[in-house]
Amino acid sequence: MADVLAPVLAPVLALAQALVRCPSITPDDAGAQDVLAAALAGLGFTIHHLRFGGPPDGPVDNLVAVIGEGTPHFAFAGHTDVVPTGDRTGWSVDPFAGMIADGQLVGRGAADMKSAIAAMVEAARRHVARGANGRLSFIITGDEEGPAEHGTRPLLEWLEAHDLVPDACLVGEPTSLQTLGDMIKIGRRGSLNAWITVRGAQGHVAYPHRAMNPITGLITALAELKARELDTGTDWFQPSNLEVTDLGVGNPATNVIPALARARLNIRFNDLHTGAALEAWLREVVARHAPNSDIDVRISGEAFLTAPGALSSLVADAVTAVTGTTPELSTSGGTSDARFIRRLCPVVEFGLPGQSMHKIDEHAATADIEALAEVYDHVLQRVFANR
Amino acid sequence: MADVLAPVLAPVLALAQALVRCPSITPDDAGAQDVLAAALAGLGFTIHHLRFGGPPDGPVDNLVAVIGEGTPHFAFAGHTDVVPTGDRTGWSVDPFAGMIADGQLVGRGAADMKSAIAAMVEAARRHVARGANGRLSFIITGDEEGPAEHGTRPLLEWLEAHDLVPDACLVGEPTSLQTLGDMIKIGRRGSLNAWITVRGAQGHVAYPHRAMNPITGLITALAELKARELDTGTDWFQPSNLEVTDLGVGNPATNVIPALARARLNIRFNDLHTGAALEAWLREVVARHAPNSDIDVRISGEAFLTAPGALSSLVADAVTAVTGTTPELSTSGGTSDARFIRRLCPVVEFGLPGQSMHKIDEHAATADIEALAEVYDHVLQRVFANR
Repeated sequence: MADVLAPVLAPVLALAQALVRCPSITPDDAGAQDVLAAALAGLGFTIHHLRFGGPPDGPVDNLVAVIGEGTPHFAFAGHTDVVPTGDRTGWSVDPFAGMIADGQLVGRGAADMKSAIAAMVEAARRHVARGANGRLSFIITGDEEGPAEHGTRPLLEWLEAHDLVPDACLVGEPTSLQTLGDMIKIGRRGSLNAWITVRGAQGHVAYPHRAMNPITGLITALAELKARELDTGTDWFQPSNLEVTDLGVGNPATNVIPALARARLNIRFNDLHTGAALEAWLREVVARHAPNSDIDVRISGEAFLTAPGALSSLVADAVTAVTGTTPELSTSGGTSDARFIRRLCPVVEFGLPGQSMHKIDEHAATADIEALAEVYDHVLQRVFANR
Repeated sequence: MADVLAPVLAPVLALAQALVRCPSITPDDAGAQDVLAAALAGLGFTIHHLRFGGPPDGPVDNLVAVIGEGTPHFAFAGHTDVVPTGDRTGWSVDPFAGMIADGQLVGRGAADMKSAIAAMVEAARRHVARGANGRLSFIITGDEEGPAEHGTRPLLEWLEAHDLVPDACLVGEPTSLQTLGDMIKIGRRGSLNAWITVRGAQGHVAYPHRAMNPITGLITALAELKARELDTGTDWFQPSNLEVTDLGVGNPATNVIPALARARLNIRFNDLHTGAALEAWLREVVARHAPNSDIDVRISGEAFLTAPGALSSLVADAVTAVTGTTPELSTSGGTSDARFIRRLCPVVEFGLPGQSMHKIDEHAATADIEALAEVYDHVLQRVFANR
């Protein structure tokens, strides 16, 4: 049925469908970047296939496509890999069939973010047709849903080495909440988890001098950590926040001082902090209260921000022009590859509603995909007209 | 074999053996108090059988025996009930056979505290033979190892009602540590357990304003409780001490704020505190940090002390005279019925080494039992000579 409809599909939908039909579960490419490369090469882009890393989480296929020269140099960024399907019997359709029905493209990657890649290509097609000056790039990874080790980070190093760093970048992650256009991300908070283990010496509670209660150091450390006001927020970020998310001792005996106590905490932090500085603080406080302790810290992502200004206004104006909605400029939610790109240039993120991402029957409205292409086209018109 | 030896046994050992042969697992008397009553009646004591309470933890048989009139009025106190045997197959002999072999009486209650009861009777026999002035009482309960609800407490009320309150009392609990005579108890710390449950509202750790983390209130409450120096100890008590003995949340997800957090703590407190005052303090601190919380407090015993003076010196002198050891005056360890008696008169505790009490193959050395009878006799000689 999809094949019967294909000839009358808008090109952006046909490309989104073709991308969804590649089962590119991270880190496998499964032909997705060849589909994309063919489309961009057809528009005149120069294609660079860049393979990074090795087993167990690679190799990873990445792609850079460039057209034009000089300034402005604008880049679209995104990923062709998808998360696993989960229980396939739960899907109402084959998650890699690219089924379009009732105005929805249903499949893994439909929302996150193959449809946005297709919309970028459609916007590029119109841009090329206009014959504008300047340079347009695509920075595409196959390692965003995985460890993100062999994707955008080395891609950016390659861009630097080849003097291809863009002036500004738009990432096509699904940032909209309820309806297309209600939210643009201009940054993200950082996130850090810490696992604390305090060792003591077991003993009878009536003879505390013969034991060493690990809970004492743990609770005083946690109370000091929790008592600190990390900051009061910024214009664009809510206050950084620490939550203790677990405690564990597991001592059934009322008259026994236990040998071990554990806690886990999470910090969501804004750009007034770095993960490394927070880790150093955690280690100092815990070591002071509980010298015989271990702390395992994992920084999931650093905070980053592209302060509202030219880029966010330009993208917001494009969104409003197409959707009639004034988008909220937000720093909420989890991490994305924008955290890496921000090191090189201003970056904002805008894409489809993300409610179904990573879920069974992930989907995107065909009307939203077509409107997203129009938003991206408006962005390019403004970027290349402004210079 | 025991029966063959019985005719040549010292009377104190024969009585201890007879008492062990009554399987008086608390609250069953199993004839033990009849054995004791017969021995005391034979010495001229007036016997009062006092049965208190009902199911499920009663009725409990108690006994008061009195001889003589006027002052001084000295009392021996103790219990004829014993704790359960535990796994009987682990015993090397029948725990209720009253086996004597290799200089040891082996059986449940041999150390705690039927042998001490027999020693008290032997001391009373010698006291009666001396024809001294004054009054000697036995205050014996069958409810010390159980809830202690229908034993010494109502017995003391009965004594008050019958104008039979002694001037001083010796409890025969096994207070010696390594060797007979190394420790006298002049008081005990109190003990209290508290179970704290804090309820919150579960939520995503990135959106703390939509959740309520119960761990926050719990750790700040515990840190404040632990930070207080309850006291610096007294001449006769070590400092009161609070230990958090358990923590529990059980939240596997790093990005989730849990709904519930639990803790348990124990306080061992000296006579600068009461259980009720400590409970009120716990409730105030916890409620202030974690309004949506429950706290369940159980006071196992209040602190009490008979300050070192005439009674403790008298008993210590008797111990040294018989054993050559200078006993430590201690307030360590758990609770005993002395906590109730202290309300009426000075009380000290002295008895056999307690290492085997409540264990498999509980035992007492026959030499220690005979020496204990001699110590108790020296106590009575000093009590009734001093007036």
